[in-house]
Amino acid sequence: MVFTRKVNYYETDRMGVTHHSNYIRFMEEARIYFLEQIGWGYEKMEADGFSSPVTSLSCDYKRTTTFADVIDIEVYVKTISAARLILGYTFRCKDEVVFTAESSHCFFGKDGSILILKKSMPDFYEKLSEMIQK
Amino acid sequence: MVFTRKVNYYETDRMGVTHHSNYIRFMEEARIYFLEQIGWGYEKMEADGFSSPVTSLSCDYKRTTTFADVIDIEVYVKTISAARLILGYTFRCKDEVVFTAESSHCFFGKDGSILILKKSMPDFYEKLSEMIQK
Amino acid sequence: MVFTRKVNYYETDRMGVTHHSNYIRFMEEARIYFLEQIGWGYEKMEADGFSSPVTSLSCDYKRTTTFADVIDIEVYVKTISAARLILGYTFRCKDEVVFTAESSHCFFGKDGSILILKKSMPDFYEKLSEMIQK
Amino acid sequence: MVFTRKVNYYETDRMGVTHHSNYIRFMEEARIYFLEQIGWGYEKMEADGFSSPVTSLSCDYKRTTTFADVIDIEVYVKTISAARLILGYTFRCKDEVVFTAESSHCFFGKDGSILILKKSMPDFYEKLSEMIQK
Repeated sequence: MVFTRKVNYYETDRMGVTHHSNYIRFMEEARIYFLEQIGWGYEKMEADGFSSPVTSLSCDYKRTTTFADVIDIEVYVKTISAARLILGYTFRCKDEVVFTAESSHCFFGKDGSILILKKSMPDFYEKLSEMIQK
Repeated sequence: MVFTRKVNYYETDRMGVTHHSNYIRFMEEARIYFLEQIGWGYEKMEADGFSSPVTSLSCDYKRTTTFADVIDIEVYVKTISAARLILGYTFRCKDEVVFTAESSHCFFGKDGSILILKKSMPDFYEKLSEMIQK
Repeated sequence: MVFTRKVNYYETDRMGVTHHSNYIRFMEEARIYFLEQIGWGYEKMEADGFSSPVTSLSCDYKRTTTFADVIDIEVYVKTISAARLILGYTFRCKDEVVFTAESSHCFFGKDGSILILKKSMPDFYEKLSEMIQK
Repeated sequence: MVFTRKVNYYETDRMGVTHHSNYIRFMEEARIYFLEQIGWGYEKMEADGFSSPVTSLSCDYKRTTTFADVIDIEVYVKTISAARLILGYTFRCKDEVVFTAESSHCFFGKDGSILILKKSMPDFYEKLSEMIQK
């Protein structure tokens, strides 16, 4: 699944390139889009009473981008286990990979307890399992 | 009252200067500091159950600043009326005025109703009235 | 001319609403789009060797917005004089005006001198003059 | 070496906590402070004609923080090799570890070529080597 994003002027820094912290924000935008596309948009997540905070991140900056560059962000499922989801991200600009990353997530219910995805949300778990990128 | 702030690298843009949107954030930092200094810090405001959103802003950009510049932000009371507070801001860097601004605020109670400051918080109203810059 | 923008999760604050500083960034996005639509995109401006920094801003916050809200931003020309352009902005969300603003701009050439728009860029000046909103 | 940072209001999100992307910015603030303290402040780096972009990041979010929380950021050298520096970061708030991270950096000279630190900046290389945390 691909989410497309143009770099804004205010996202550049005095080196003339997109500031590296903004890629973490672009990851969030792409992740929200991805979850929405597979039927778990924000409203549904709230209605189902759960949140999925980032527990860890790792990323590699391969090439710089700058204002007005269009970035295609591919999001995919790396692994899904009882209580943890790992998503992968590949950012491409002008047909070149500029950034790759992973984010880990756990899931909380409305009462703040950790959810066992497989048990609490079997449909969502199934859906994500089918999408694991080989 | 003066609040001092160093410009961060990620607050610059590809023109090599502090992005103009960040001054609005520096104003908030200075305002929170100012309110804290006069005895209305965030915890007290929350305990007293009120919030003071920005209802309007106006500002003049006079000189650019950049990474590592130290900005001295003077905050003062311009006017205070029954339901509205107007604060003024003067940003100085290397002894020159780089930015001036005003922000207007109304006050809400916990139930979302507009507070009449003079009535609901006479101490705070008094304090601000005494501080009006002639 | 209307530029449409969805509010990102990271643009909200702990009040649960879009942080007011982000509207200044949305104004920049809409302005760049507007200039591009009338034939003065960033690349052309750079090729013509000029920049148009914000010299002043004023704005009114009328209603809050939050994550996933879609904002329609109308940009128009308020006044254009020899050396100064004033743009107006109306932000609408769910058919209600949520924010209005103005930004003033001067124009600099590559050598840093102030440009007299009417003389240095008569086509651009003409185009903007025709667009003044009555 | 410890850099101290208070969380700003605009750095929180609608979950009521510091948005996770801001920790990447706090890392940059702490890193710049750290390099300055060991004698490689920004001005010197620029005078010596070099830059040190982030090539990769990894981080773990352990506990949330929010507005007005004071974060103590410990920065240390993890490894230093011919062409690569890895810094470590431990964020503490109220005596608890809230976030840990690593950032990798390469070094570029003014002409954009990769610098071999040991050769091009032996003093800096030596200094960093001595600081490796056992």
